[in-house]
Amino acid sequence: MPQASTFLWNRRMLLQLNCRGYATAQFMQPEPAKYAHAPALEAKTFMQPEQPYYAHHPGRFCYVKDEDDGALFSVPHAPVNREPEAFRFSVGAADAAWTVRSGGLEIELAVRLPADDVAELWTLRVRNVSGRARRLSLYPYFPVGYMSWMNQSGRYRADLGGIVCDSVTPYQKVEDWFRQRDFKDRTVLLHDRAPDAWEANQAAFEGAGGLHAPDGVLDASLGNGDALYETPVAALQYRLSLADGAAEEFHFVFAPAKDEADIVALRQRYLAPGGFAVAAAASVARLAEARGCIEIETPDPWFDAFANHWLPRQVYYHGDSNRLTTDPQTRNYLQDQMGMAYLKPSTARASFLLALSQQEDSGAMPDGILLAEGAQLKYINQVPHTDHCVWLPVCLQAYLDETGDDALLGETVADARGQVATVAERIDRAMRWLLAQRDDRGLSWIAQGDWCDPMNMVGWKGRGVSGWLSLASAHALGLWAAVCERAGRAAQVAEFRDGAASFNAAVNAQLWDGDWYARGITDDGVVFGAAHDAEGRIYLNPQSWAMLSGAADPSRQARMIAAVEAELASPHGMAMLGPPYTGMREDVGRLTQKFPGSAENGAVYNHAAAFWMHALYARGEADRAWWSLRTMLTGPDPDECLQRGQLPVFVPNYYRGAWRLHPRTAGRSSQLFNTGTAAWMYRCIIESLLGLRGDGDGLQVAPQLPSHWPRVRARRVFRGADFEVEIVRMGGLASQRVEVDGAPLLGSRISGIEPGRRYSVRVELPA
Amino acid sequence: MPQASTFLWNRRMLLQLNCRGYATAQFMQPEPAKYAHAPALEAKTFMQPEQPYYAHHPGRFCYVKDEDDGALFSVPHAPVNREPEAFRFSVGAADAAWTVRSGGLEIELAVRLPADDVAELWTLRVRNVSGRARRLSLYPYFPVGYMSWMNQSGRYRADLGGIVCDSVTPYQKVEDWFRQRDFKDRTVLLHDRAPDAWEANQAAFEGAGGLHAPDGVLDASLGNGDALYETPVAALQYRLSLADGAAEEFHFVFAPAKDEADIVALRQRYLAPGGFAVAAAASVARLAEARGCIEIETPDPWFDAFANHWLPRQVYYHGDSNRLTTDPQTRNYLQDQMGMAYLKPSTARASFLLALSQQEDSGAMPDGILLAEGAQLKYINQVPHTDHCVWLPVCLQAYLDETGDDALLGETVADARGQVATVAERIDRAMRWLLAQRDDRGLSWIAQGDWCDPMNMVGWKGRGVSGWLSLASAHALGLWAAVCERAGRAAQVAEFRDGAASFNAAVNAQLWDGDWYARGITDDGVVFGAAHDAEGRIYLNPQSWAMLSGAADPSRQARMIAAVEAELASPHGMAMLGPPYTGMREDVGRLTQKFPGSAENGAVYNHAAAFWMHALYARGEADRAWWSLRTMLTGPDPDECLQRGQLPVFVPNYYRGAWRLHPRTAGRSSQLFNTGTAAWMYRCIIESLLGLRGDGDGLQVAPQLPSHWPRVRARRVFRGADFEVEIVRMGGLASQRVEVDGAPLLGSRISGIEPGRRYSVRVELPA
Repeated sequence: MPQASTFLWNRRMLLQLNCRGYATAQFMQPEPAKYAHAPALEAKTFMQPEQPYYAHHPGRFCYVKDEDDGALFSVPHAPVNREPEAFRFSVGAADAAWTVRSGGLEIELAVRLPADDVAELWTLRVRNVSGRARRLSLYPYFPVGYMSWMNQSGRYRADLGGIVCDSVTPYQKVEDWFRQRDFKDRTVLLHDRAPDAWEANQAAFEGAGGLHAPDGVLDASLGNGDALYETPVAALQYRLSLADGAAEEFHFVFAPAKDEADIVALRQRYLAPGGFAVAAAASVARLAEARGCIEIETPDPWFDAFANHWLPRQVYYHGDSNRLTTDPQTRNYLQDQMGMAYLKPSTARASFLLALSQQEDSGAMPDGILLAEGAQLKYINQVPHTDHCVWLPVCLQAYLDETGDDALLGETVADARGQVATVAERIDRAMRWLLAQRDDRGLSWIAQGDWCDPMNMVGWKGRGVSGWLSLASAHALGLWAAVCERAGRAAQVAEFRDGAASFNAAVNAQLWDGDWYARGITDDGVVFGAAHDAEGRIYLNPQSWAMLSGAADPSRQARMIAAVEAELASPHGMAMLGPPYTGMREDVGRLTQKFPGSAENGAVYNHAAAFWMHALYARGEADRAWWSLRTMLTGPDPDECLQRGQLPVFVPNYYRGAWRLHPRTAGRSSQLFNTGTAAWMYRCIIESLLGLRGDGDGLQVAPQLPSHWPRVRARRVFRGADFEVEIVRMGGLASQRVEVDGAPLLGSRISGIEPGRRYSVRVELPA
Repeated sequence: MPQASTFLWNRRMLLQLNCRGYATAQFMQPEPAKYAHAPALEAKTFMQPEQPYYAHHPGRFCYVKDEDDGALFSVPHAPVNREPEAFRFSVGAADAAWTVRSGGLEIELAVRLPADDVAELWTLRVRNVSGRARRLSLYPYFPVGYMSWMNQSGRYRADLGGIVCDSVTPYQKVEDWFRQRDFKDRTVLLHDRAPDAWEANQAAFEGAGGLHAPDGVLDASLGNGDALYETPVAALQYRLSLADGAAEEFHFVFAPAKDEADIVALRQRYLAPGGFAVAAAASVARLAEARGCIEIETPDPWFDAFANHWLPRQVYYHGDSNRLTTDPQTRNYLQDQMGMAYLKPSTARASFLLALSQQEDSGAMPDGILLAEGAQLKYINQVPHTDHCVWLPVCLQAYLDETGDDALLGETVADARGQVATVAERIDRAMRWLLAQRDDRGLSWIAQGDWCDPMNMVGWKGRGVSGWLSLASAHALGLWAAVCERAGRAAQVAEFRDGAASFNAAVNAQLWDGDWYARGITDDGVVFGAAHDAEGRIYLNPQSWAMLSGAADPSRQARMIAAVEAELASPHGMAMLGPPYTGMREDVGRLTQKFPGSAENGAVYNHAAAFWMHALYARGEADRAWWSLRTMLTGPDPDECLQRGQLPVFVPNYYRGAWRLHPRTAGRSSQLFNTGTAAWMYRCIIESLLGLRGDGDGLQVAPQLPSHWPRVRARRVFRGADFEVEIVRMGGLASQRVEVDGAPLLGSRISGIEPGRRYSVRVELPA
């Protein structure tokens, strides 16, 4: 059984589903909270990759027992884990469904979320395909887990139509009560058909038999028990007699609730006839906003499905939900909204304005953007990072290119202290802050981290510097200077171009290591991420951004690319650094202790791989960029991936690296869909691979197809116009040729775009 | 299979064992930490009652597989849960052992802790009693769980002789690294015999079979696998051929370790020949300190075993380990050390001095006593409580009575600000603080809690008062006045006697409710714990302490006792309040939300029941007091308890209450052995039941036997002398008669005690 997974979300909740039936659900009240818990008191933490599933992990299951011969299985797969005759896990944009055939029965289990409500809407269908009449018991089993050490219970409530588990979120301080008193502390499983029996007590359900063969299920009837300060469960029993070919269908709502009125409302909204259909239509309608601005048809159909459907969905998830936090890291927030620029630019615009309203007087951006009243900086956002300002021009550029909304620059933004400044002025200040936060050598201080959070001991004493951040600052300044130029802000153009050049010069003087750029210099003056290091001797990001910033001349670029490919390329993609650290290096910090091959330490960290891809496209390296793109989605062999039926439905934040050190685990997906990769990948596909990038009031056309693609068709929605694009390779061409509506285009820029108009664009590329 | 449990400890660690094999271990580094974890990221919290055990709960197990027929079971019981032919769970003072007979095999599993080291020393013996030769595989299976999201791994290390699981305790802030860098972040299972195979990867061990029938165990051989940022496990396989009657023995050390040197040291210390025996001798020697100051022989042998052996062990645990916290609540710390006065008075003395060194300038005692450098007040100790000063004279009295060490009063104690004062002066200040912290009516403000932590909203606005605390203050002042009187401090005697009287008068004026004393008055002036309340209308503590403080005259005492017995008595003991709250009462607070029947809300909370017992003894109510004592240990029916083999080995902090509301769960033990009950029970047995209480330089003799005891023998160690005591009921006596060494004693006080001398005391009681 594979580990495939998907996620469903709306603005108030997230449901992560593993194909075996395990599930992790969170909802905002206003911080992330759970209504189905582990069996032990769980720590509150940020979203973790590679969740370890175990028998009592939260999940949604249905046991199926043959009442004649006692045969037992469960759908989707756990807890009984009986090998099915057929198994399908179907992932939709707004739903997920399983079809399992076992013992002559076909069971369908499906779930979707409402458009704007915290609830799971489950449908269970059972069909007898065994060629004879059957007597069955079905047991929907929704573990609720250890809700609270303060108060938890569960019971069947015929009047409310389901199992209701009550709890009180624990607290000790008086002030916490006022924060928590309106929490949805109940968990309910509501049904549309009264069960024959039920069990609300986890221990009674299992008995000595355990989850694979629970006493409650092996017995003739569930015990109709309750949980009294005991771990609750929501388990129901339906006895069915099914003629051959007959089928039955059930609906359930699994949700948190505040009180009985809330429960009654859930019932009425969803379990009245047609309730699920109405909710389904609404959730599909909501996701129409996630429809991308491109549709493509390439020689790689798996890629088409991903780029047309799954990738914009993932990008939209980020911009829509802000990863279900109340204090997204500023860096993540801005990049997520960069992705939103292609899908729902009004949200991106409002988000940029919100972020800038939290700018500090110094020009610095805070470590996180607070989205809810009373929200606080948590976890990593309590650790000072120095890169947040960089992302303002980097992300804004995409927005401006896509929308042409230069008016944004003149919008005024008031901060918490009532100070008002325009967007342009605020970005000026952010750029000046980057220019000021440098040491005597002209390199950027790293404090307790830059883009790489756990590089937390390079500069905590106030002296260590970041090579990457210096390069990223140069790139940001250069991008911003270009925007200023278009806006006629000549003084700023000069100031920021000079600033960019000084950053590049400092990096070239201090950090060029012969074949690549070093990662930084520690508090104690030690250059690291350099050839003299046995571990962590080359980092991907400085190389990517040295190409973007212009620090590296073509000859250095070529050496860097060769070094990166020699040192960091793996069958699973381009690692973030190499060789991975295997132990603590106190002058680098936490990074060096992270498992070698997970996340930042030597993994194929897709966010970094995406920067690399972006830089390669900027250099015109279409095939190298494609390799990075492809490995982010399918690993080394797309065909093999296809044959396994494991089409990508999201790009994970990493694949395990350290492939020489740990070949067994290398390439394993984190299964975590929160990643800036999605936005960058979407941007690269639109602007570089297809080469359909906005530029002032026009559209630049400059595709960079991988060489194995002779032809691509695409539809691009841009500034309200539709562009039907055909890209073909032609023998005998010296350079690209573009026709618009049959007429040759001078140069590569389509201007004078009329909203509502349909353009037919043909691009001929040299073979 | 019952839920019996026990605990082993030394000053650095605690191991809580459930008879089915589940275990919870903690060690101090310096805050409580774990080396065997749940399968999910656990919250750090205080020790919880009623731990919910589930399949993947940490535990120590051994699978046993018959290599011929594949039959499988596990010892002690989980995870296979096969019904054994015989099962014995033997609990010793310094060890625990299981003997399980299943399928013709007798398996013994035993564990003890070293005297002063963090390690579990396990012995496994298997004996073939099947009457034929057998081929077996044994699989010691020690789950290690989800160690860390930052770094975790596991592998077999032949060079170190076992499985070594590595991790890094997660952190994000630089300063935490320096706090954690010396943590023992490894978990090891070391063996004295090389296994035939092993598995260090939990998922590989289980496969699809699950814990009840792991793939690894069903296969011919464990997979010799490792865990790489995967949940580790320590599982070994030993293949044995056992002739009929033959036996084999294995030794294992399961422990945290910092590094390889640490692991090598563990091996050398314990797995060299005789290592376990040396450790066993040392741990037994250490527990000799826990030998009580009484030995009794009564008509209730179950009680003798408890009072002679288990109770002093539990009292010693509290005083020795301070419940494995670095910031024990001041109230708990003082009461725990009150118990230590009977076992190791030097520790009690040092602890009282330490507590007083943390007194605040105002005279107030802090909410917790910090025991380790860098320790901080955590959890409930961050919530202001107003009762801590009360416990100084209450606990000191026991110490002074037991030791005669009045010199303590003149010891000088410097606080953190360098201010020096004698113990007596500091207690004066604490008493004056109690006198000052009163409202206009003369009642004690409760702030966010008194003895009852979750009564956190009675007085958080600064106006609500506590009836119990006012009475407890009166009692404390009275006790302290008596000590002052003995010390010739006449001014203080008058001051504190007057103070006690004013508290009593205020309570009598404001809180007598007709048949009992109310619990308090809320911020908004509402009297609660009174007859007009539907829930929580009577609380046990105010009644107990009104007897102790002298507030209640004999007629009121009689009414109170009748009311308590009518309202609070249950088959499982005396509830702390009744009827239990069933929902939030905002002017009382968190208490009213705790599960009705757990801990403070309506449970038989033994700490409160112990105060009641103490007060009943003070009033001479021997039979009523005995009922309280007995129900704290055995529930309603000691004989039935004996027949079930469930002899008490510790007094738990509560039994579930709410017996009318929730009869199914009423009487269930919390299984939590952290409780002030132990010290109070020991004090009452010594000083009241046996009536052998120190008094100045003498010993008061005033036994209060339950009426069904015609005769008791006791040995009492007191001030270095041995008292052989025989207590008999005699017909025709009007009052107690005492003979010492054959000579009648005038009155009831033995004075002029000579250390080292043996006294023979005969007490005749009226029948």
